Amino acid sequence: MDFKEIIEEIYLNVKNLDDKGKVATYIPELENVDPENFGVYITTLNGFKFGIGNYKDKFSIQSIAKVLSLNLAYQLIGERIWERLGVEPSGTAFNSLVQLEADNGIPRNPFINAGAIVISDILICNLKNPKEDFLAYVRNLSNNPELNYSEKIAASENEVGFRNIALCNFIKSFGNIKNDPTEVLDFYFNLCSIEMTCKELSEVFLFLANNGFSVNSKTSVLTKSQSKRINAIMLTCGFYDESGDFAFKVGLPGKSGVGGGIIAVHPNQYTIAVWSPKLNEKGNSFKGMRFLEEFTTKSELSIF
Amino acid sequence: MDFKEIIEEIYLNVKNLDDKGKVATYIPELENVDPENFGVYITTLNGFKFGIGNYKDKFSIQSIAKVLSLNLAYQLIGERIWERLGVEPSGTAFNSLVQLEADNGIPRNPFINAGAIVISDILICNLKNPKEDFLAYVRNLSNNPELNYSEKIAASENEVGFRNIALCNFIKSFGNIKNDPTEVLDFYFNLCSIEMTCKELSEVFLFLANNGFSVNSKTSVLTKSQSKRINAIMLTCGFYDESGDFAFKVGLPGKSGVGGGIIAVHPNQYTIAVWSPKLNEKGNSFKGMRFLEEFTTKSELSIF
Amino acid sequence: MDFKEIIEEIYLNVKNLDDKGKVATYIPELENVDPENFGVYITTLNGFKFGIGNYKDKFSIQSIAKVLSLNLAYQLIGERIWERLGVEPSGTAFNSLVQLEADNGIPRNPFINAGAIVISDILICNLKNPKEDFLAYVRNLSNNPELNYSEKIAASENEVGFRNIALCNFIKSFGNIKNDPTEVLDFYFNLCSIEMTCKELSEVFLFLANNGFSVNSKTSVLTKSQSKRINAIMLTCGFYDESGDFAFKVGLPGKSGVGGGIIAVHPNQYTIAVWSPKLNEKGNSFKGMRFLEEFTTKSELSIF
Amino acid sequence: MDFKEIIEEIYLNVKNLDDKGKVATYIPELENVDPENFGVYITTLNGFKFGIGNYKDKFSIQSIAKVLSLNLAYQLIGERIWERLGVEPSGTAFNSLVQLEADNGIPRNPFINAGAIVISDILICNLKNPKEDFLAYVRNLSNNPELNYSEKIAASENEVGFRNIALCNFIKSFGNIKNDPTEVLDFYFNLCSIEMTCKELSEVFLFLANNGFSVNSKTSVLTKSQSKRINAIMLTCGFYDESGDFAFKVGLPGKSGVGGGIIAVHPNQYTIAVWSPKLNEKGNSFKGMRFLEEFTTKSELSIF
Repeated sequence: MDFKEIIEEIYLNVKNLDDKGKVATYIPELENVDPENFGVYITTLNGFKFGIGNYKDKFSIQSIAKVLSLNLAYQLIGERIWERLGVEPSGTAFNSLVQLEADNGIPRNPFINAGAIVISDILICNLKNPKEDFLAYVRNLSNNPELNYSEKIAASENEVGFRNIALCNFIKSFGNIKNDPTEVLDFYFNLCSIEMTCKELSEVFLFLANNGFSVNSKTSVLTKSQSKRINAIMLTCGFYDESGDFAFKVGLPGKSGVGGGIIAVHPNQYTIAVWSPKLNEKGNSFKGMRFLEEFTTKSELSIF
Repeated sequence: MDFKEIIEEIYLNVKNLDDKGKVATYIPELENVDPENFGVYITTLNGFKFGIGNYKDKFSIQSIAKVLSLNLAYQLIGERIWERLGVEPSGTAFNSLVQLEADNGIPRNPFINAGAIVISDILICNLKNPKEDFLAYVRNLSNNPELNYSEKIAASENEVGFRNIALCNFIKSFGNIKNDPTEVLDFYFNLCSIEMTCKELSEVFLFLANNGFSVNSKTSVLTKSQSKRINAIMLTCGFYDESGDFAFKVGLPGKSGVGGGIIAVHPNQYTIAVWSPKLNEKGNSFKGMRFLEEFTTKSELSIF
Repeated sequence: MDFKEIIEEIYLNVKNLDDKGKVATYIPELENVDPENFGVYITTLNGFKFGIGNYKDKFSIQSIAKVLSLNLAYQLIGERIWERLGVEPSGTAFNSLVQLEADNGIPRNPFINAGAIVISDILICNLKNPKEDFLAYVRNLSNNPELNYSEKIAASENEVGFRNIALCNFIKSFGNIKNDPTEVLDFYFNLCSIEMTCKELSEVFLFLANNGFSVNSKTSVLTKSQSKRINAIMLTCGFYDESGDFAFKVGLPGKSGVGGGIIAVHPNQYTIAVWSPKLNEKGNSFKGMRFLEEFTTKSELSIF
Repeated sequence: MDFKEIIEEIYLNVKNLDDKGKVATYIPELENVDPENFGVYITTLNGFKFGIGNYKDKFSIQSIAKVLSLNLAYQLIGERIWERLGVEPSGTAFNSLVQLEADNGIPRNPFINAGAIVISDILICNLKNPKEDFLAYVRNLSNNPELNYSEKIAASENEVGFRNIALCNFIKSFGNIKNDPTEVLDFYFNLCSIEMTCKELSEVFLFLANNGFSVNSKTSVLTKSQSKRINAIMLTCGFYDESGDFAFKVGLPGKSGVGGGIIAVHPNQYTIAVWSPKLNEKGNSFKGMRFLEEFTTKSELSIF
C-alpha cells in the first residue's frame, strides 16, 4: 500500500470519528474557525506530494512557528542559544511559571511559551528589522512570497495575553530578557500569528527531513548536526506534556499549535502536515494526533 | 571510516579526558569499583561485533534493568500497563516524590524509580516465582545462562534504601501498589543488582534494534509496534532530567544506570553498551555520555 | 452573660446546624463513632469548670497528642529541638511530602505529620522506655492515672499507615531520623491513639494557659517563655492549612485531631475542649470550629 | 522595670550587635540609606510615649503600608474581600508565583505581594480618586497632614518592578484583577512608597491596639471584630516565611517592610515601631527583629 492509499483510508476513518475535542476560544479568530476543517499534506524527499481535505486552506500555525524562530536564532548565534534556555521536557503545562521560578528564569526548552519568548528576545538582538527579517526568512523557506502575519490575530493575542506578559516580565526579573518586554511580546505575538496551509507547512519544514538543506531556498538553512538537534527537541518537547505520548504513539519529531495544526518530520524521508481545529485536553489537535498515530502504524515507519 | 576505527579513535580521546565525574558512593559495592574502568561493545544486526577496554568485566547494570522488567511486564499484560503509569518525561529527579504527589500516585514513566517499582509490583502479580522467572527471562535473552543477581548489592541497597521504601509506601497509600511493599522492594532491589559485561548488555538488548525479535532466544520478545514504543520511552525518559540533552547530543534511545553503564539502541542497526563508573552531576556516566555523543557525531548516524 | 450561659446558647445553635462534615473513615475505630456526638468542656484558671453534651465520653485525640509529645521533647532537650524542625506554617496539607523534599528533610513545624515523627524520634533517643515514659508524663498532667493508648487504634493506624511509613523513611533518607523507622512509627501510632474525654483534655492542657505550671502535677512543665512559644506554634500551625483561618475567626492558640477533637487555649484565662466527629474539608471538626468561632465572638475574648 | 528602662537597655545592646544584615539594594533610594540608622518608638493606650535613636527620621515604610490598604478595603467592602484572597500563611517567598498558579490566581493572604496587588485593585474599584483618597485616609489616621508618597521611590520601583508586573498580569490572566494592570501597579508602587517616622508609624497603627478606634481621627476605623482579625492576619502572615518565627520569638502581631521598618501591636496595650535598614536573610530588619524579641522577653508581655 502506498502513502496515497494509506492517507486516503485513514483520512476517512478519522474524519468520521466522534471528535470530543474543543476549538480554542480565547480569541475570536480561533473560535470562529469551522471546527469540521480537516486537511493533510505530505511531501517526500523523493518528490512525492499529496494532499487531502482542506489542505489548501490557510490557518493560524501558532506555536508551530516556534520551530522556525528557533531555527533562525540557531542559525544566527549557534550553540550560544543554550546559555539562555535548555533542551529538557518541562513536565508541566506550556504556560507554567512554576518551573521558571525553580530554574531562575531559564526556560526548560524553546517550545514552551517562556522559551519561545527568550528566542524572540534573541532574534530582536540579532536582526535589524526583526519582524520584517523574520518574515523574509520564512517566505524564503516557502514557495509563497505572500506568507504573512495576521495583524488581527496578533492584536487579539496581545489583548488577552496577560499570562504571556506575566511570563516575559517574570523572565526579565531574572535578567534573561534583554529588550523591553513590550517589544519582545509584540514580536512573539506576531510570530505566532503567521498563517499557512497544510501544503505550505509541509513544504517549509522539508529542510528538517533533509539534513538542513532547503529545496525552496536552495541553501543549507542548518548544518546536518543542527538539523538533527532540532528534530530531537521536537521529539522530546514538541507537544507540551503530551510529548512522551506522541513519541510513544506516533514516533516522529513534530510540533503542534493551538490552531489545530501539526507538523511531523520523518528524517531522510518526508514531512507531513495535518490540520483539524478541535483540540484534545492537552491542547493538541484531536484528529491530527489520531491521524498521525494511525499513519505511522499503518505505514510501519517511524524513527524507532 | 568503519565502526571499529571510529570506536578506537573516540575511545582513546575520551579515555584521556579529565573526568570530573564521581563514582556513586551510597553503597560500598559501587564505591569500591575502580573508577578508571572504561569499556565499549557494539553489536550490529548484520553481524558485526567489536569491543574495547573493559568490555568483558561485569558491573552492576542498576537502572538499565528497568528496561528489561518493563519489557517483561509489557509482554505479560500489554497496554494495560499504562493504566498504572505514564510515558511522559518527569522534568524532576529520578527519585522525586513531588510529581507523584501531584499525580496521585501514578508515576510519570517506567524509568523513574517510582515507575520501576510499580512495574515490579505488576511482575509479582503476574509471575509464579517472580525473582526466578525474571532471571530466567533475562538469561534467555542473553548468551549467558549464568547471569545473576548480586545478593550483596541487593542487600546493600535494601539497607540504605529509605527513599525507595518511602516511594513504595507512598504509591501504596494511593492504592497503586497491590502487594506488600517489603516484597515489592525486595524484587526491585534484586532487579537492579543484576551484573553484566558491556558485551552481554549489548547482546541482550539487540532485540530492541530488531523490531522485538531476539536472536539469542530465537523468539519475538515484543511485537514490532511494542518494540518501537519501548525505544520511544527510552528516548524521552531514559536519562532522568538529562533525557532531552541525550536526545539532543546523541540522538538515540538509551538507558543509563548509576553503576556507570549506558545502553543505546539504533533501531534496525545496532546496540552499543558503554561503561565508565564516574558519573556527571545528573547521575549519568560522564565518559559514557561523551563517548556516545562523539560516536553518533562521527558516524553521522542517529535516528534524527 | 457568663461562660455557662454563652456555652449553653451556642451549644444548642451549633448542635442543630446542618452538619456537612464527614467522619474520618480510614480506620474502623474512627468510622464507627456515632457522628452525632458533641461535647464541650471549659476549665478556667480561677477555678470555673463546666461541661455540656458528651463531655464525659472518651474519644481518640489523635494529632492533639502532638502538642504533648512536643512539650515533653522541649522539656527534655530545650531549644536543640529546632535544629531538626522549624516553626513555620507549611502552606500545604498535613501529610505532604513536597515541602519536605524542598526543605531536605527538615519538617516545617512539629504539628504536620513529618514534624511529629521527628519529635517521636527525639523522644525515643531521650527516654528509657519511650512508650511507658510518655504515658506516665501524660497521666501526670491529668487527674486520671488510667489514661491509656488504644492498642486497637494504634494497630489499625499501622495497617493503613503507608503514607506515614513513606514520610518516616523519606526523612530518614535525609538523615533526620536516628532510630529504626519501624520503632519510630510504632511510637508515633501509639501516641496518636491516646483516648481522653473533653474534660480530661481541657484539664491536661491547662498548664499552657498557666505559663507552664501544671495544677495537676503541681510542677512547672515548661518555663513561662517555653509555654508562650508552644502557644505561638499552636496559633500559627495548629490547624494545618486552615491555621490562618482559625486565628482569623477564633483567635486562640489551638490544636485539632482527626477524631473530631479540638483544644483551644486562652493564655492566662482558660482552656476549652470541643469534640464532634464530623470533619470539614480541611480535616478539622466542623461543629468544633463553628462552636469556637461563636464562642470567642460572643465572649468578645481572644488574644487579639 | 518600666518600658522606658527596658527599651533603653535593649536599644544599647542591639545597637552594638555585629549586624550581619544587608540593606536592600534593588532601588537607589533604599540602597543609599545610612545602614546605621536605628530608631524605636512606643505608644501605649494609657498615654505613655517614648522614642530613642532615629525615631524622628522618615523612612520608606514599604510593605507595612499593605496593612493600611487592607484596612481601608476591609472598611469599604467588608467580608467580601475574602472572595478574592485568603488568610493563610503562604509557606513560600513574598513574591512567589508558584502558590498563585496552584491556587488559580487567589493569593494566599493580603500581605504577600500578590495579595496586596489584589487589594490595590479593590481600592481602585471603590475609591473615586484612589491615590488621593488613600493618602487622605492615612493622613487622617496620623497626626501629620503632610504624610506623603515618595514620587522618586514609586518611580524607581516601577522601573525595576518586572516581578510585580508579572504577578499582576498573572493574576489578571485568572480574572482576579478588574482594572488595567498598569493602573493597579501604579497605585501599588505609590502605596509602598509612603514615608513615615517610627513615631508616626506607632501612632498611626494605634487603632489596632484599641479595638479599631483611632484616637487621632476620633472614629472607629474598624469594628472590634475586624480589628482583631487584622491582628490575627498580621500574626500569621506579617513576616513572609519568617512569620512563624516572629510569633514564636516575639509573640505579637506585626508587619515588616523592606525599608527596615517593623510595626508590632500588643492588643489593648501598645504599638511599637522599630527601624533599622539592614535586613536578615528572610528580608526582615535584623536589628528590628532582635530588638522586639528581647523586648517581649524582658517585659514578659506577649499575647501568648
